[in-house]
Amino acid sequence: MVIKTNRSVGIVETKYFTFNDLILENKHKLPNVTVAYETYGTLNEKKDNAILIAHAFTGDAHCAGYHEGDEKPGWWEGMVGHKKAFDTDKYFIICSNVLGGCQGTTGPSSINPETGKEYGTDFPVISMADIVKVQKKLIDYLGIEKLFCVAGGSMGGMQVLQWAMSYPEQIRSAIPIASTMRHTPQQIAFNEVGRQSVMADVTWKDGHYYQTGNPDRGLAVARMLGHITYMSDVSMQKKFPIKEKEKSVNFNFNADFEVEEYLRYRGSAFVKRFDANTYLYISKAMDHFDVQKEEFLPLGKNIKIKFLVISFKSDWLYPAYHSENIVKYLKMRRQSVTYCNIHSTYGHDAFLLEIKDETNLIKNFLGNLYNEVNGVK
Amino acid sequence: MVIKTNRSVGIVETKYFTFNDLILENKHKLPNVTVAYETYGTLNEKKDNAILIAHAFTGDAHCAGYHEGDEKPGWWEGMVGHKKAFDTDKYFIICSNVLGGCQGTTGPSSINPETGKEYGTDFPVISMADIVKVQKKLIDYLGIEKLFCVAGGSMGGMQVLQWAMSYPEQIRSAIPIASTMRHTPQQIAFNEVGRQSVMADVTWKDGHYYQTGNPDRGLAVARMLGHITYMSDVSMQKKFPIKEKEKSVNFNFNADFEVEEYLRYRGSAFVKRFDANTYLYISKAMDHFDVQKEEFLPLGKNIKIKFLVISFKSDWLYPAYHSENIVKYLKMRRQSVTYCNIHSTYGHDAFLLEIKDETNLIKNFLGNLYNEVNGVK
Repeated sequence: MVIKTNRSVGIVETKYFTFNDLILENKHKLPNVTVAYETYGTLNEKKDNAILIAHAFTGDAHCAGYHEGDEKPGWWEGMVGHKKAFDTDKYFIICSNVLGGCQGTTGPSSINPETGKEYGTDFPVISMADIVKVQKKLIDYLGIEKLFCVAGGSMGGMQVLQWAMSYPEQIRSAIPIASTMRHTPQQIAFNEVGRQSVMADVTWKDGHYYQTGNPDRGLAVARMLGHITYMSDVSMQKKFPIKEKEKSVNFNFNADFEVEEYLRYRGSAFVKRFDANTYLYISKAMDHFDVQKEEFLPLGKNIKIKFLVISFKSDWLYPAYHSENIVKYLKMRRQSVTYCNIHSTYGHDAFLLEIKDETNLIKNFLGNLYNEVNGVK
Repeated sequence: MVIKTNRSVGIVETKYFTFNDLILENKHKLPNVTVAYETYGTLNEKKDNAILIAHAFTGDAHCAGYHEGDEKPGWWEGMVGHKKAFDTDKYFIICSNVLGGCQGTTGPSSINPETGKEYGTDFPVISMADIVKVQKKLIDYLGIEKLFCVAGGSMGGMQVLQWAMSYPEQIRSAIPIASTMRHTPQQIAFNEVGRQSVMADVTWKDGHYYQTGNPDRGLAVARMLGHITYMSDVSMQKKFPIKEKEKSVNFNFNADFEVEEYLRYRGSAFVKRFDANTYLYISKAMDHFDVQKEEFLPLGKNIKIKFLVISFKSDWLYPAYHSENIVKYLKMRRQSVTYCNIHSTYGHDAFLLEIKDETNLIKNFLGNLYNEVNGVK
């Protein structure tokens, strides 16, 4: 029996929305797109209380509550629910799996209607703008003209910024967390090692492996590396203190240290739920993402979005200076920006773990805007 | 025609020394050990001017000068030569390939005399103490009772510390650079991802690939990751600034960015000169290395070694606090220690690149000791 806190949204279900003919940024046409999404809370009559939560690289639409029979809640359970940061008593929360994903939304592991087989690497390349365009279709479908807020951490934060660039009139506020306006060479390099690991696996077969078996070993190694970059030197020392008995002059190539065991476990757990081609497509979309350009909130267009930018002190994958660059850029574009660099030892994972500090910041930020919009003093 | 600076030691040759029956720390006996080594300068009559230079993870015995016909000098050319930091006018410099290596010294790719085939993973596991024990055999063979100094960066620094633990009476001074007394979980984790990448390659075949073809793709990915950890966020931005034309909505899975091209090149160049099993054995020896213990320079034994400890500010693989721990430990053991944390943006690679600052520090440090030993005022 799962013990659910009484502030959870409880049992939830993933829903699906399908539409035809998505024109991608590169002019390619995708004939058929399905979007997996979940919603929590109630959309009010004016339809002005909707918040879109964008997930990170390997996330999904299930950000809160429990799927029937599951022991584990959604990936941002601590943040979404009754009286939580994203308060489902007040707001209508939407979370969808990204385009190119493998958790219900159309991606390289989906069936290509032209061939009746999985796309594999015949799937067209996609951009962050395409990912957000699909979210916009979903919002339209739900009858929402303007989002109260778009929020997300890591790649979720990129989608937040992309919303502000692609559909500035359709969002009232935006919360990019532990994110960036564009990847640095180091961030691209880490992604590239992950991709090379997948592509080096002979079972990858240029992306056409769905009938023959997934490149699990290559993908697992990519994920192991990912986990190192999501943690910090300090958090790893706290979590996996080296024990005297682990040190030996008679080691073998099994896992001698707890940290090795952990990484192997996380690698093999990951490949059960994630598609290797999605790993390639989405990581490339991140590497090519770039809002540090003229068209992002141009002056003179009188766009007013309220921003809350959050970073974490021990995050070395998306270090605080990336968020400071966002703040600087937004200020130069005369936007309203609140910024906080939260103390944490968790590294990049902090956006999933520093629930208390994030809640304080986000609850107040949204609450003030809510009162403003609804004329509460 | 190669232009050689007139301060180079010029054309050099690798020499070989073979001995029987090395008893390893784990009691295993290696029947036949060959050591590849180079020497520069002249051993004086008292045989008290010898300096041993220990190489890093993937280095070799060729640290200075040029092999006949080669365009590229040894890996520490800037540091070893006439009037350089390790001044060959004054000192007799020795550098040898480590046990378990693949550049001339016995390792897993050597022939097992019992079978007539390569050892592969039948090679016994080795420790940093074993690596240093082989160096001691070489020093004995050269007729040297006490080294003037042992110096090295990264894993070279571990060997320096291991010398001070295993043979404290045989060294007058020691220079561990960008190193550590023991690996943290993060350092072990990075090594483990490299190992998993090698072992995930189907051509690895549990280490018995010498007749069928090397696990080049897995090893290349491991090396790509290594390179990221050797550089810094800043040095990567300087070396591979993102160009507008690299960003595209029409990317493919080739290398879109210069940094990807560079990593792929370094990966494929590496596998031509390095053995995958050596990668496994040596990285494990590093992970199990630990001198943070009672037996390291115990009080009451009246051991006096002069230490110069060097770290680099942007090194995040062996961050400065590791060197500070060494300094603290040595001070508690009442050793003479000089410490400098050099400003650099090169990351861990700085020990190979910050030649000017290292030269100033090392030249003075060795010069003072030289004068002291030789009664010069």
